[in-house]
Amino acid sequence: MTSFFSDLIVAISERGRSFVDVHQVSPEPKDLQTIAKALLSQKGEASGIALASDFFSVYEDMDALELDAFFDILAKQFGPDLKSVNEIIADIGDTATVEAVLELHVKAEPQRQELFRRLNQAPQGTIKLVRLREELLKRLGKNPRLGEVDADLHHLFHSWFNRGFLVLKRITWSTPASVLEKIIKYEAVHEIASWEELRQRIEPTDRRCYAFFHPALAEEPLIFVEVALGKDIPDAIEPVIAPKREITKDRHARLATFYSISNCQQGLSGISFGSFLIKQVAQELLRELPQLEQFVTLSPVPGFLRWLRQLAQDNRGREPQAAPELPDEQLLVIEDLLAHGWPASEDQQQVLQDILVPLCAWYFLHAKDRHQKPYDPVARFHLGNGARLERINWLADHSAKSFGQSAGIMVNYLYDLDEIENNHEAFANEGMVRAASSISRMAKGSSSFQIVEKVS
Amino acid sequence: MTSFFSDLIVAISERGRSFVDVHQVSPEPKDLQTIAKALLSQKGEASGIALASDFFSVYEDMDALELDAFFDILAKQFGPDLKSVNEIIADIGDTATVEAVLELHVKAEPQRQELFRRLNQAPQGTIKLVRLREELLKRLGKNPRLGEVDADLHHLFHSWFNRGFLVLKRITWSTPASVLEKIIKYEAVHEIASWEELRQRIEPTDRRCYAFFHPALAEEPLIFVEVALGKDIPDAIEPVIAPKREITKDRHARLATFYSISNCQQGLSGISFGSFLIKQVAQELLRELPQLEQFVTLSPVPGFLRWLRQLAQDNRGREPQAAPELPDEQLLVIEDLLAHGWPASEDQQQVLQDILVPLCAWYFLHAKDRHQKPYDPVARFHLGNGARLERINWLADHSAKSFGQSAGIMVNYLYDLDEIENNHEAFANEGMVRAASSISRMAKGSSSFQIVEKVS
Amino acid sequence: MTSFFSDLIVAISERGRSFVDVHQVSPEPKDLQTIAKALLSQKGEASGIALASDFFSVYEDMDALELDAFFDILAKQFGPDLKSVNEIIADIGDTATVEAVLELHVKAEPQRQELFRRLNQAPQGTIKLVRLREELLKRLGKNPRLGEVDADLHHLFHSWFNRGFLVLKRITWSTPASVLEKIIKYEAVHEIASWEELRQRIEPTDRRCYAFFHPALAEEPLIFVEVALGKDIPDAIEPVIAPKREITKDRHARLATFYSISNCQQGLSGISFGSFLIKQVAQELLRELPQLEQFVTLSPVPGFLRWLRQLAQDNRGREPQAAPELPDEQLLVIEDLLAHGWPASEDQQQVLQDILVPLCAWYFLHAKDRHQKPYDPVARFHLGNGARLERINWLADHSAKSFGQSAGIMVNYLYDLDEIENNHEAFANEGMVRAASSISRMAKGSSSFQIVEKVS
Amino acid sequence: MTSFFSDLIVAISERGRSFVDVHQVSPEPKDLQTIAKALLSQKGEASGIALASDFFSVYEDMDALELDAFFDILAKQFGPDLKSVNEIIADIGDTATVEAVLELHVKAEPQRQELFRRLNQAPQGTIKLVRLREELLKRLGKNPRLGEVDADLHHLFHSWFNRGFLVLKRITWSTPASVLEKIIKYEAVHEIASWEELRQRIEPTDRRCYAFFHPALAEEPLIFVEVALGKDIPDAIEPVIAPKREITKDRHARLATFYSISNCQQGLSGISFGSFLIKQVAQELLRELPQLEQFVTLSPVPGFLRWLRQLAQDNRGREPQAAPELPDEQLLVIEDLLAHGWPASEDQQQVLQDILVPLCAWYFLHAKDRHQKPYDPVARFHLGNGARLERINWLADHSAKSFGQSAGIMVNYLYDLDEIENNHEAFANEGMVRAASSISRMAKGSSSFQIVEKVS
Repeated sequence: MTSFFSDLIVAISERGRSFVDVHQVSPEPKDLQTIAKALLSQKGEASGIALASDFFSVYEDMDALELDAFFDILAKQFGPDLKSVNEIIADIGDTATVEAVLELHVKAEPQRQELFRRLNQAPQGTIKLVRLREELLKRLGKNPRLGEVDADLHHLFHSWFNRGFLVLKRITWSTPASVLEKIIKYEAVHEIASWEELRQRIEPTDRRCYAFFHPALAEEPLIFVEVALGKDIPDAIEPVIAPKREITKDRHARLATFYSISNCQQGLSGISFGSFLIKQVAQELLRELPQLEQFVTLSPVPGFLRWLRQLAQDNRGREPQAAPELPDEQLLVIEDLLAHGWPASEDQQQVLQDILVPLCAWYFLHAKDRHQKPYDPVARFHLGNGARLERINWLADHSAKSFGQSAGIMVNYLYDLDEIENNHEAFANEGMVRAASSISRMAKGSSSFQIVEKVS
Repeated sequence: MTSFFSDLIVAISERGRSFVDVHQVSPEPKDLQTIAKALLSQKGEASGIALASDFFSVYEDMDALELDAFFDILAKQFGPDLKSVNEIIADIGDTATVEAVLELHVKAEPQRQELFRRLNQAPQGTIKLVRLREELLKRLGKNPRLGEVDADLHHLFHSWFNRGFLVLKRITWSTPASVLEKIIKYEAVHEIASWEELRQRIEPTDRRCYAFFHPALAEEPLIFVEVALGKDIPDAIEPVIAPKREITKDRHARLATFYSISNCQQGLSGISFGSFLIKQVAQELLRELPQLEQFVTLSPVPGFLRWLRQLAQDNRGREPQAAPELPDEQLLVIEDLLAHGWPASEDQQQVLQDILVPLCAWYFLHAKDRHQKPYDPVARFHLGNGARLERINWLADHSAKSFGQSAGIMVNYLYDLDEIENNHEAFANEGMVRAASSISRMAKGSSSFQIVEKVS
Repeated sequence: MTSFFSDLIVAISERGRSFVDVHQVSPEPKDLQTIAKALLSQKGEASGIALASDFFSVYEDMDALELDAFFDILAKQFGPDLKSVNEIIADIGDTATVEAVLELHVKAEPQRQELFRRLNQAPQGTIKLVRLREELLKRLGKNPRLGEVDADLHHLFHSWFNRGFLVLKRITWSTPASVLEKIIKYEAVHEIASWEELRQRIEPTDRRCYAFFHPALAEEPLIFVEVALGKDIPDAIEPVIAPKREITKDRHARLATFYSISNCQQGLSGISFGSFLIKQVAQELLRELPQLEQFVTLSPVPGFLRWLRQLAQDNRGREPQAAPELPDEQLLVIEDLLAHGWPASEDQQQVLQDILVPLCAWYFLHAKDRHQKPYDPVARFHLGNGARLERINWLADHSAKSFGQSAGIMVNYLYDLDEIENNHEAFANEGMVRAASSISRMAKGSSSFQIVEKVS
Repeated sequence: MTSFFSDLIVAISERGRSFVDVHQVSPEPKDLQTIAKALLSQKGEASGIALASDFFSVYEDMDALELDAFFDILAKQFGPDLKSVNEIIADIGDTATVEAVLELHVKAEPQRQELFRRLNQAPQGTIKLVRLREELLKRLGKNPRLGEVDADLHHLFHSWFNRGFLVLKRITWSTPASVLEKIIKYEAVHEIASWEELRQRIEPTDRRCYAFFHPALAEEPLIFVEVALGKDIPDAIEPVIAPKREITKDRHARLATFYSISNCQQGLSGISFGSFLIKQVAQELLRELPQLEQFVTLSPVPGFLRWLRQLAQDNRGREPQAAPELPDEQLLVIEDLLAHGWPASEDQQQVLQDILVPLCAWYFLHAKDRHQKPYDPVARFHLGNGARLERINWLADHSAKSFGQSAGIMVNYLYDLDEIENNHEAFANEGMVRAASSISRMAKGSSSFQIVEKVS
C-alpha cells in the first residue's frame, strides 16, 4: 500500500556510499582521541558526518593493542563531568530537590553518550557502533573500567533498538543472499551446513523463519527463529531437520514448533528481543493460519549435565543438604556417565533414562542459579517469557553437543497465548515455574531418589 | 539494488494495523496513571504492546482538562527516584567517584524516560509520542513543572531522531498524496494554496523539493526545503513562485536557491535538522548536476521590523547608547512607516530604501538577542550553519506578511561548501558574522546614521 | 516477499530517461517514413532504440495536417506484401494446405505490425503507441483506410494487454499524486471536482477504488472501479457520494456496490478489461472481508431517453409494429417530457414514474440494438459479464446529465459469483437477459401499456 | 522515486497464489483438448482464469506419452480455419486486394494463438507457456508437424518479449537467492560450482553481472552477462575467474570484459536478447564509470575443432578445392591432435601454436556455414552485433571442454560503440567480417599453408 516509504531504507544504506564518494579522508594522520574531541566540539556540529567517518576509518585500521589503549581512553577521559557533579552535590546539602536531581542527571551523563550519538552519523554508523561494542565486550575481563563504557552503549542501544523500531520479516528463499548467508552464519542451535540445508529450513510449505531487523541495519538480522508446522508436538530434533521428510501442507498444520532461536549480534547482548519475537511470530502465524492450536518449542537443556556434575560431587561429598539426595547405585550410574560418556548398551540406556528423566524434572522445577532464577539458561528465557514446561523428551537429539550438555534430552515449552501474561508475572514476582502436572509429579521424586526440599 | 530492505518500513507501519485487529482494548475503564504504572512493572514487560496501545486509546479520548491533569501527574509522579538519589549523595561525602556519579546518573533518570520508551511499542507509537509532546509544549506556559517532562521527551527525541537514522527523500509529483498534503499543510514560509500550486513547486525541471523522514514516521516529513534551479541569484520571491514563468532545463542551471525551509513537527521543536538538510541537499544536487556553481537562499528577515520598532523607541527615549543613533529626519520616516504602514508614493519608498537598507546591514552584523546571538532568527539559523550573508534585496516580497515583518526585504545567504566549516566555527566560538564586503561597508554607517559601537 | 522484483517496473520507466540522456537526436531533419523504413531494415536491428526514439521525437512535433498525411502513408505503404501473397495464392490452386495457409498468414501480416513492435523499444514506447492510436481513432471517420492501421494496433494491444500481464492495485490516499490526478481526470460517470472529493472516494473505511495497470504504463491506470461498502443496496447515487455521510466500518459491511467504472485510455478502446476487473475486485474484497454477501452496481441507463424519443416517434408514426404501443395519454406525457424537460410538480412526477418505470423494465428486457444486443450500452456490459438486473430505482440521480439520458433512473445489477458463468453463457449464446422477477413482471406490461411482442 | 509502481510486479506474481487459494479445480477428470476448446468458446470469456488454471493442472500431471499425443492434437486440431481461408481464396480470383489480404491474414491465424493468449491468464501463465514450448522443442525432431505449433509460440513470444518490455537489472550479492540459484544453474560458459564461486563473480568491486528480466517472469532471468573490469584486455580465462586474485577498484578500471553470456530459457530460443544486453550493459557501465575506454569479450571458439576435423578430412581426401590447403607435415600434426588429444611436450605445443593460430584466423575470416554466415556460432553472434574480432589468444582456457572444442584458444571481440552500427550493416548486408589487421594478415596465410581463395 504505502510503497513510497519502501525507499526509505535503501536511502539509509545508500547515504553511506554516496557520501564516501565525495568525502576525502584528510591526509594527515589523526588519532581517535583527537577526532573524538573534535566531534564533541563546535566543529563536530558543522562537520559531524565527516568526522564520524574519519573516526571509523582510523578505528578500523587499528591493531589489538591500539584498540586496548583506545578503549581505556574512552573509559578514562570521556566519562561524566566530575567537577560539575561535585559542585552540584556540594550545593544540595541535605536533601536534593527534583530540580537538583534533574540537573545532576544531565551533568552526570558521560560525554561518551553524546560521542556515540554523533558517531552514529557515519555511513553505516549504527552497525559500526554495534561492532565496536562487540570488541569492547571481549576486553571486559581484562579491563574492568570498560564496564563503564559498556553501560553507555547498552543504554544507547536499549533506546535505539526499542521494540517500536524493530521490524519482523519473514525469511524465505527469495530473501537476498546477503541476508541468508547471515542466517547460515548465526544459526547457533542446530547448525546449517550448506545453502541446500538452509533451503530445507525456509522453503517447504511447513517451514517458516522470521527475523527482527532494524531499519539502520538493513542487511543484518538481529535475532531469528525457525518454525516447523505440523500436527503433533515433536519429541526429537532429527525428524524436524531431516533433509528427506514428508512435507505437510501449511493449511493442514495444527501446531507450530519454534525449534531454533538465535541471536545474531554479540554487540547487542543484553538487549532482549527474543520474548517479543516469539509472541509476534505466533500472532503472525495465527493471522496466516487461523487453524493453529498450539505453539511450542523444541529446546535443548544446556545446563543439565553441568548441574548433574555438581550434584554428583555434592552427593559424594556427603553434604547433608545435597538436593536431591541420590541413592548410591544411582550416583554410580551418573558418575559413570560423566566419566565415560554415553553407554552403548540399550539396557544401560534404559537405566539412565529411569534415573535422569525424573532428575531433569526436578532440575527444571528447583535448580536455581545464584540469582535464584532457574539454573538452565534456556528455561530462564522461555519461563521468563511466560511459557510453561510441557514435556521432557528422552533421546531427542543424538548430536555430540547435545549428549555433552543435555544428556540428549530436549524439552517442549508451551506458549499458551492466554496464559503468557499470568505465567510471566508469577515467574517474575514469585519465581513460580509453570510445568505440566506430569512433570511436577516426576519432580516430587520417586522410589529412585529422595527430594530434600531446600529451595523455596 | 537492495530492494529487499524496502519492505522494512512498510512492515513498521503495518505492524500497527495488524496488531490492532487482534488486540481488544480491555472493557473496564482505566486511567492513564494506572496503565502507565503497569507498563513500568513486570506486567509491562510481558504485555507492553497491549498496555502501550491501551494507553494511547485512553489518552486520545481525553479532553483538555483531563490532559492538563494527566501532564501534571507525569511531572509529579514519574520523575526520578529522589530517595535513592539522596541516599547515594549521603554516601558520597565530599567528592564523588566516577562509580558513584555513574550510579547517580542511572538513579537520577526520571521514570518517564522508560515509560516513553515502552509507550513507543504502541502501533504508531513514535508519532503519537511526538504529538504528545506537541500537546505538552502548549501547556508549558501555564504549568512550569511540565518543563521537566519536556526535558525527558527532548532527550529521547534527540537520541531517536539522530542524524544517522534520518533519510533524505526527494518529493515529486509521484510522491504519495498523503505525504504531499503535508507539504501543503506545513509550508510555513510561502504558502501553497492548492494542489496545482504544489505541482508548480515540485514538477518543473528547475524545481526540487527534499525532505527528511524517519523510518518510524513514514508518512510524516520532518523538515523540507524547496529549491529553485536557475542562472542568477534571485532578488525577489515573486518571480520564483509565479505560476507562469519560463522554465530552465536543469542541465542549464548554474545555481540552486533554497527559497523555503519548513519544519513540520512542532513536537520535535528543539531537535535541529535544518543544518543537515541544506548540506545534504547541496551534495545531492551536486551529484545530479555537477555543473552547479553556487548554493544560496532567498530568505525573509522576520525580526527586522520588530527590532526597528525597538530602535525607534530607544532613539526617541534619547538613550545615549541607542545604536545606531538615528538623525531626526530618519527617525520620523521610520516612525511614520511603523505607524501608518507602507507608503504609496515611489518617492517616499525611495527615501525609505535609502534609510532602511543600510540599517538592515547594521542589523545583521550587530543586532543581538539576549544570548548575544544575531537578533534575526533566520540569520541565526543560516549563519549558525556556516553560511554568509551575501546580498540584501529591497522590495523582494510584496506580501502583507513580508511588509509587516521584513519591510519587504529579503536576503541571500550563500552556502560555500568550502567555507561552511570555518564560518560555523568562527560564528560559534567568536560570534563572527560573515557577510559580503558590500554589506559590511554599508553596516559601517553612512552619512545617514552614526554607528555607535556597543556590541562586541 | 519478492521485493527484489519490485524494482523491475521502476527500471522500465527509468530506462527511458537514462537513455535519453546519452542519446543525441540526429541533427539533420528526417521524415517519419524514412525513419520507419530504416527501423524495418537491418539498420533497425542494430539501432532500434535510437531510431524508435527519433521516430517519436519527430512524430510529437507534427501538426494535425502532417499527422493526417503520416497516417495515410501508414495505411498505404506499410501494409502486407501483396506481391508475395498473390504468388502464394497462385501456387495454391484449388485447395490450400495447412502449410500454405500458414505461409499465407505470415506473408499477409502488414509490415506495420513489426514497425509497431520495434517502435515499442523507444523510451515510454508503449504509452506513446497507445496515444498514437488515440490520434488515429479520431481520424477514422474521415479516412476509412485508417481502419486497416487500427486493426493492426488493436491486434497488438490485444496481445500485449493480455489479462495475464495486468496488475490490480488498490488506489488509496497513499497512492502517488501522479496516479491520483488521472483518477480525477478519467472519472467518467460521477465527476470528481477536487482533490478533497477524491479523498472522500478513497480514504473512508467504507470506500475502495481499484485499477488495472500494465507494467510498461506504470503511471497510467487502464480502468478503475469505485466501490462503496455498506449494509443495503443503494437506490440513489447522492447518498453514496455525499461529502458528509455516516461512515460504516468495513468490518460491518454486508455488501459492496460498484458505483462507477471508468476506462482511462481511449487508445485502448476495444480492449476489454471491465469484466475481469469486477470479478477480480469481488474476489479481492471477499478475501479481505469474508462476511460480504452481495456485489451489486449502481448504474445509469444512458440509452433510455434516446430510446424513448425513438419510441415516441414510432408510436406517433402509427407504425403498427411500434413496441411497446403506448396509449395516447401516456404518449402525450412522454412527449411533454422530451420537449420541456423534467416537470416541477410532484403530481406530474408521479404520473411520469407510473409510466416510465414499467417502460424501463421493458427497455431492459426487449430493446435491442442492430446487433440484437441490449440497446443500453451499460446493460450490454454488465449482462455480458454475467450480472443480472436486480432493481430499477426511480429518481436515483438528480444530475442534469442523468435527467438528460436516464430520466433520473439508476439500476442495480447483481453479480452473483455462483451464477456469473451461466448467465454469461445464456446471454452470449441465446441473448437471454437475466432479471429479477419483479422486473420481468413489470416488463410484461400493465394497464398502462400494451406489450407487442416483436423482438425474440 | 516512483516506488508506488514497484508493487506492480509483486502483484503480478501474487495474483497467482491468491487465486489458487479460492479456486477449486473441478473434481471430474478432464482432458486438455476439452479444456482448450472451452477456453476458446464463450465459456472461456467468462471463466478464462479458471479454465487456464485447470489446463495447466492437467498438463503438469501428464506423462511423456500423453504429452506427445497432446502436442500432436495441438498441431492438427488448433490450426487455421482452412475452410474460411479457402473460401476467401476462391473469391479473390486473380489478384488479391489489400482488404482481401487483411481478411486472409485474420482467418489464416491458427486458433492456437488465441488459445495461448488465453492460457496466459493462468497463475504464472507466461512462464508455464515458456516451459510448454521447451517441451515442444524437444519433440520437434520426431514430429515435424510440431513446427507449426512452435511457429505460433515463437510469434507470440517475439511480441511479448519485445525489447520494450524487458528490464535490465544488476545481479549482486543482495539479489534474492531464488534468482541467484538460477545464475548458478544457467551459467553455460564457465561453470559456477558453488555459492562461494558465485559470490566471487558478483561481489568484488571489479565484477559485474547484469540480466534481462520480464515483468511476468520475475524470478527468472532471461539472459545474463558477466563482466570483469580491469586495465588490460585479458588473454586467458583462468586469471579472470580465479578465486584468489588481485581486485581492482572499479574507479581505476579502464576496460570492461564480457567474459560469459548465457541464455536461461530454452523455451525462448530464437528470441534474441543478447545484442540488446551487451549494448545496454555497456551504456550502463559508462554511466557509472565514465572513464571506461573499451568494451571487449573473452570468448570461446566452439566450432574450431569441428571445422578442423572437417578440414583435415577434406585435405586428406585430396579435394583440390579444400581450403586452406595444408602441407603434409601440418596435416599430420593436426591429425595427431585430433586423434590423441593435447600433446604434453612444450615443443609439440609450440609446433601446434604455429600451425593453429593462423588457421584460426583464416577460420574466422573465411569459414562459413551453409547460410554463408561465419561457421563459428559465437562469431556469428558478436560479429552480427557489430563487434570486430580483436585478438586470438593461445592457451587461454585449460579446461577439457575448451581443448575439446576450441583447442584452448579464446578470442577477444571488441565492441566499439561508435562502430557497432556500421559493422552490423556491413556484416548483415555484405557478409563483411571486421577484424584487427594483424588477424587479417595472419589469415592471408604464411609459409605454413596456402590460402586458396574459395569463399567470397
